[in-house]
Amino acid sequence: MAPLTNARVIFNEIPKSLPEPGKTTVYDASENIDLDKTLLEGGFLVKTLVLSIDPYMRGRMRDPNIESYMPAFEKGEPLTNFGVGVVLRSEHPTISIGDHLYGMYPFQEYFVSKDASSFRVLENKEKLPWSVYVGVGGQTAHHAWKEYAHAKKGDVVFVTTGGGPVGATVIQLAKAEGLKVIASAGSEEKVAFMKSIGVDVAFNYKTVSTFDVLKKEGPINIYWDNVGGESLEAALENAAMPGARFIECGMISSYNGESYHVKNLEKIFARGIHLFGFVVMWLTKWEDEFYKTIPGMIARGEIKYKEDVKRGLEIVGQAIVDVQTGRNKGKSVILVADE
Amino acid sequence: MAPLTNARVIFNEIPKSLPEPGKTTVYDASENIDLDKTLLEGGFLVKTLVLSIDPYMRGRMRDPNIESYMPAFEKGEPLTNFGVGVVLRSEHPTISIGDHLYGMYPFQEYFVSKDASSFRVLENKEKLPWSVYVGVGGQTAHHAWKEYAHAKKGDVVFVTTGGGPVGATVIQLAKAEGLKVIASAGSEEKVAFMKSIGVDVAFNYKTVSTFDVLKKEGPINIYWDNVGGESLEAALENAAMPGARFIECGMISSYNGESYHVKNLEKIFARGIHLFGFVVMWLTKWEDEFYKTIPGMIARGEIKYKEDVKRGLEIVGQAIVDVQTGRNKGKSVILVADE
Repeated sequence: MAPLTNARVIFNEIPKSLPEPGKTTVYDASENIDLDKTLLEGGFLVKTLVLSIDPYMRGRMRDPNIESYMPAFEKGEPLTNFGVGVVLRSEHPTISIGDHLYGMYPFQEYFVSKDASSFRVLENKEKLPWSVYVGVGGQTAHHAWKEYAHAKKGDVVFVTTGGGPVGATVIQLAKAEGLKVIASAGSEEKVAFMKSIGVDVAFNYKTVSTFDVLKKEGPINIYWDNVGGESLEAALENAAMPGARFIECGMISSYNGESYHVKNLEKIFARGIHLFGFVVMWLTKWEDEFYKTIPGMIARGEIKYKEDVKRGLEIVGQAIVDVQTGRNKGKSVILVADE
Repeated sequence: MAPLTNARVIFNEIPKSLPEPGKTTVYDASENIDLDKTLLEGGFLVKTLVLSIDPYMRGRMRDPNIESYMPAFEKGEPLTNFGVGVVLRSEHPTISIGDHLYGMYPFQEYFVSKDASSFRVLENKEKLPWSVYVGVGGQTAHHAWKEYAHAKKGDVVFVTTGGGPVGATVIQLAKAEGLKVIASAGSEEKVAFMKSIGVDVAFNYKTVSTFDVLKKEGPINIYWDNVGGESLEAALENAAMPGARFIECGMISSYNGESYHVKNLEKIFARGIHLFGFVVMWLTKWEDEFYKTIPGMIARGEIKYKEDVKRGLEIVGQAIVDVQTGRNKGKSVILVADE
């Protein structure tokens, strides 16, 4: 077989605020690969099928001297994020041709790896589309809910960005436990989607005051925070006493140089609130339980989800911007190739 | 016996910023009590010996319509806070004459109560001065350390207001577990005191940058936060990843209408930090262990403490201001009467 193009998306430049396609990230189709001849050296050759686009990727577009929970992207190298691919060739004892691998992928059509331990072979008994395994916001929602929510009967839950992949999964996990769920999103379309998945009180935070809703429908025992800022402020003010759990999944409002500073942080001790910052990579102890329960719930329709699947690595730069600005219509996934 | 004056300290007016003696609180010696004849109605008569003055009292000087972890003080009624007194007469089956009771006291020389369950009879095998039982910051430090610190070998601890009663006890609990302790305070005198109780790195936050000290001596695994503001900001920036524990004991900088807003709250999730707001009244499950261990440690000199004992209810208003402005020279205690 003749060499094929092995297209990639390169991290080119640290952005000041919003990333810019073609500047922050560059699509590069200058490299080739010979799938039959490329050396494996005891490793395995993977064809990338789907890649996830997530808000937290903005945090990796930084000066590598700034320490954070995930390494900075390397200038001149491909972006990396969660993906699923299929093994084309293997010299590795535990990886077979045709295996589907979940793990951290380079944004590149084909790659060779020797590190089997950093991938999970997906069983997919339910024959779900591969995009679901990087989508749904499943692992983040599941692991942190299991670790921190400590939900009790009668608890009231508030979920921000409930129309997004992580928020929507949290909503459905909470509803599966019979809890009252309040959820916010930034458009009427997302509010309608949240209602369709069973939210008790769904509202558009751009037209309705979060504080007023929580005042009326709270106090809240569990807060799933994807945004920080004014929502966090309203949640602090309306936390049930004592011991409300705030699961701090992200503060997208702070990623692009904006600067809303919460003004009532003293409620943390005044109301005995516990805040749990986490990164899903540190909660992998819940992974086996996730694969045992969540794909089945999705297959049975107990967890519904909305994907925003776009085809081709060329679109990655724009997809990243869309996720940062909330223009995606569901979990953002790049379909790199069919099987 | 002729009736005696039964002096009290009344909550008179909600302060706008700092409380003002004679305005916010008023010393009132207009009431009398006949110790032999006053009706007990099945209760017990207590002579107040010592009362605690604590930073959190400022939070109770508020509009009672504003909900918080402790009820607002009632206008026209005595202040209340932790105290120790001695029982002069009793008609209650579980309370005897001569018992020393620890609990929530009215700021009043004598009072009758029927509620034995809200007091603890102190054994005081160690014959410690009664002031120690409202002082030392013992219960707050002990209970929250037990509940939230989850100290592991090699952990680095940062304590703010380490010269204060709570901070100093936390320092000594951490040193007893063999941990490296960094501690800050606002005067050279307090820095010297912190060194005398074994702090590894003691500094004056008014002359040295908290950020620089933590950068050099951290990262920190446990943060005991008594102040919020810039110290919290520096701690967020220098938290060990993942899973640092921030024990949020208070934010004195926010009590009197000041408004420093933390600018890097996103570190909570970026570094996977867990923040635990608490109020000591909710951690009473640790009380028995406290009375089993801490008085002994004090008696053996393993926990040293500094008291600022003032005599007489007349001084209460000023003592409250001193605690709010950091002018007290140790745990602030009012000695109301000798036995």
